[in-house]
Amino acid sequence: MLPKASRLADRRSRVGRTLLTDDLDALLFLDLQNIRYLTGFTGSDGAYLLERDRSVLMVDGRYTTQAGEETSGTKVFQYREKVEGIAEVLAGESLRNIGFEAAAVNVETYGKLKEKVSAVRLQPLAGDLVNIRAVKDDGEIASLRTAAAIASRTLLALLKDVRPGMQERDVALELEYRMRQNGAGGVSFPTITASGMHSALPHAAPGSRLLAMGDALVMDYGAVYEGYHSDETCTFVLGQASAPFQEAYGIVKAAHDQALAAVKAGVACAEIDRIARDHIEAAGLGRFFSHGTGHGTGLDVHEPPRIAAPSKAVLEAGMVVTIEPGVYFPGKWGIRIEDMVLVRENDCEVLSKVPKDLTVL
Amino acid sequence: MLPKASRLADRRSRVGRTLLTDDLDALLFLDLQNIRYLTGFTGSDGAYLLERDRSVLMVDGRYTTQAGEETSGTKVFQYREKVEGIAEVLAGESLRNIGFEAAAVNVETYGKLKEKVSAVRLQPLAGDLVNIRAVKDDGEIASLRTAAAIASRTLLALLKDVRPGMQERDVALELEYRMRQNGAGGVSFPTITASGMHSALPHAAPGSRLLAMGDALVMDYGAVYEGYHSDETCTFVLGQASAPFQEAYGIVKAAHDQALAAVKAGVACAEIDRIARDHIEAAGLGRFFSHGTGHGTGLDVHEPPRIAAPSKAVLEAGMVVTIEPGVYFPGKWGIRIEDMVLVRENDCEVLSKVPKDLTVL
Repeated sequence: MLPKASRLADRRSRVGRTLLTDDLDALLFLDLQNIRYLTGFTGSDGAYLLERDRSVLMVDGRYTTQAGEETSGTKVFQYREKVEGIAEVLAGESLRNIGFEAAAVNVETYGKLKEKVSAVRLQPLAGDLVNIRAVKDDGEIASLRTAAAIASRTLLALLKDVRPGMQERDVALELEYRMRQNGAGGVSFPTITASGMHSALPHAAPGSRLLAMGDALVMDYGAVYEGYHSDETCTFVLGQASAPFQEAYGIVKAAHDQALAAVKAGVACAEIDRIARDHIEAAGLGRFFSHGTGHGTGLDVHEPPRIAAPSKAVLEAGMVVTIEPGVYFPGKWGIRIEDMVLVRENDCEVLSKVPKDLTVL
Repeated sequence: MLPKASRLADRRSRVGRTLLTDDLDALLFLDLQNIRYLTGFTGSDGAYLLERDRSVLMVDGRYTTQAGEETSGTKVFQYREKVEGIAEVLAGESLRNIGFEAAAVNVETYGKLKEKVSAVRLQPLAGDLVNIRAVKDDGEIASLRTAAAIASRTLLALLKDVRPGMQERDVALELEYRMRQNGAGGVSFPTITASGMHSALPHAAPGSRLLAMGDALVMDYGAVYEGYHSDETCTFVLGQASAPFQEAYGIVKAAHDQALAAVKAGVACAEIDRIARDHIEAAGLGRFFSHGTGHGTGLDVHEPPRIAAPSKAVLEAGMVVTIEPGVYFPGKWGIRIEDMVLVRENDCEVLSKVPKDLTVL
């Protein structure tokens, strides 16, 4: 499904109003998800220029036809080399100041750009820019809801087949295959299926380890639907949970639940992180919670806002974020519990559908 | 399989000899494949500092344990925030000039770095740096050979099941699933299975289109083995090939064969591109060949050298590159024929194993 022409125009108009301030004549985008967000183009390379009265998508020869089909209200320009193409599009226009994505342009490209368009002043944008996609519109929320539902439904069905003796990587492969059979366009990121000691590595790659009785099993996974990424983590145990595992699980689960209960418009992201962290610290496990509490998700699986201590962001209705506290005991096991939620005015809607009470497989 | 400690030490020593010239005290790496190449670390975030007598891998809390397991001869430093971590590692050292990857550092990070380590002069590296991985060692060649073999073997077996009425996306999904069942750690990129008119889009995403009799079917796909990416493209036809299709296929195939026959150490990459392009231009199809002739592959699926007209690179023994001419007729169909080859002193070894004569399914 292509984003509706009117929706794309709305986004461009909003971004223009917010970022095309008096001292900027145009915005140059190189981040492919920002380009997709503003033009509908889904290719793997390109550049996009937004002016008050002009919208130009630049692509190479592989994508000219596709760009014409996917975009509307935007001129398509074909280049042989990107930076030269940008220079050509800018030539003849009387543009003086152009804002660009400081996080999406590397120092090499920036150097070439400065050289080729020396008459233009390039102004790095950071703060406002990264947040242009943070609040989702109805179409985006629908895609994220579907992505989360496909993922959860697939995992719940797969659990019946997960048993000791299976390789971690086979569990991951089966989950990814079935999510795509169930309608996912792809997976949000390489699935984590970390068992036993591996579960103590927050981002372990699935390997040849065989699941064994008594193992913790951390599964972090997501489905992509219409370009939108779901993200959910479940921690299971095989056969029987030890007392220390049950205790730690209860602590992480309570931290997760308390943070989630606090999610609503107007609350600082740092406050959500504080709630989860306080609970885990009070239980004496603070030093084992080695990452932030969550992040936004959308066209990228990690996007603003960050839900972490240094975050300055404040939750707004329409944001979709994860809540994912965890604890990791090196050489032993780990636990992470993650739901993806839609922020509403007075609470949140949990989009992930796998129950988070401790489940013994 | 982890790269052997001695191999990692060799790479660091070679890169140090090449890049740690008199005016540089250290090299700072942020590109994750360069970091993997030099340290063995396979995580998804980090930074790496190489000095004449020091090797420091910086990671966040998710990766401390994993980094310790994967690396050797390298100190692991845990940070909370990457740029601050880098600043901390540099503090107290009397480093004056540090080279960094101009293509792997974005303008925002660069700005923060300059601020935090203001006593150090950061020097962008481009030319030499991108080529550090271009010539593969024996272990890398073995991984690429295995990756290509898994991919080709899987496709050849799958072809028996490909028939009119199947959805493009199901063909792609089945191929990816079976490559991983056959030992691939992942896929090199989202598989292209472009049928009929879609085959005229060089990088079409597989969709719900049903394969039909008479369709061209472009399949561009690859397997990852031990982190190394294969890349191969086959163009098939379903049922029966039209005369214009057969003619165009013959032209692209001859361009591919002639370019491939010219591959050996000492030949300019631009010359290989010229050979393929000349043949297609002489046949009157030059304007339909809208991309370069090939690229290196390895820890990234696209890496130096580029095989294209503007390329300054010269082939060396041990490089692994693709040869992939193609022609695309918008609204009609397209053809691309791609093999991955190992450059040798006097010729090349074709690592892709699917026969490239026109195959009717």
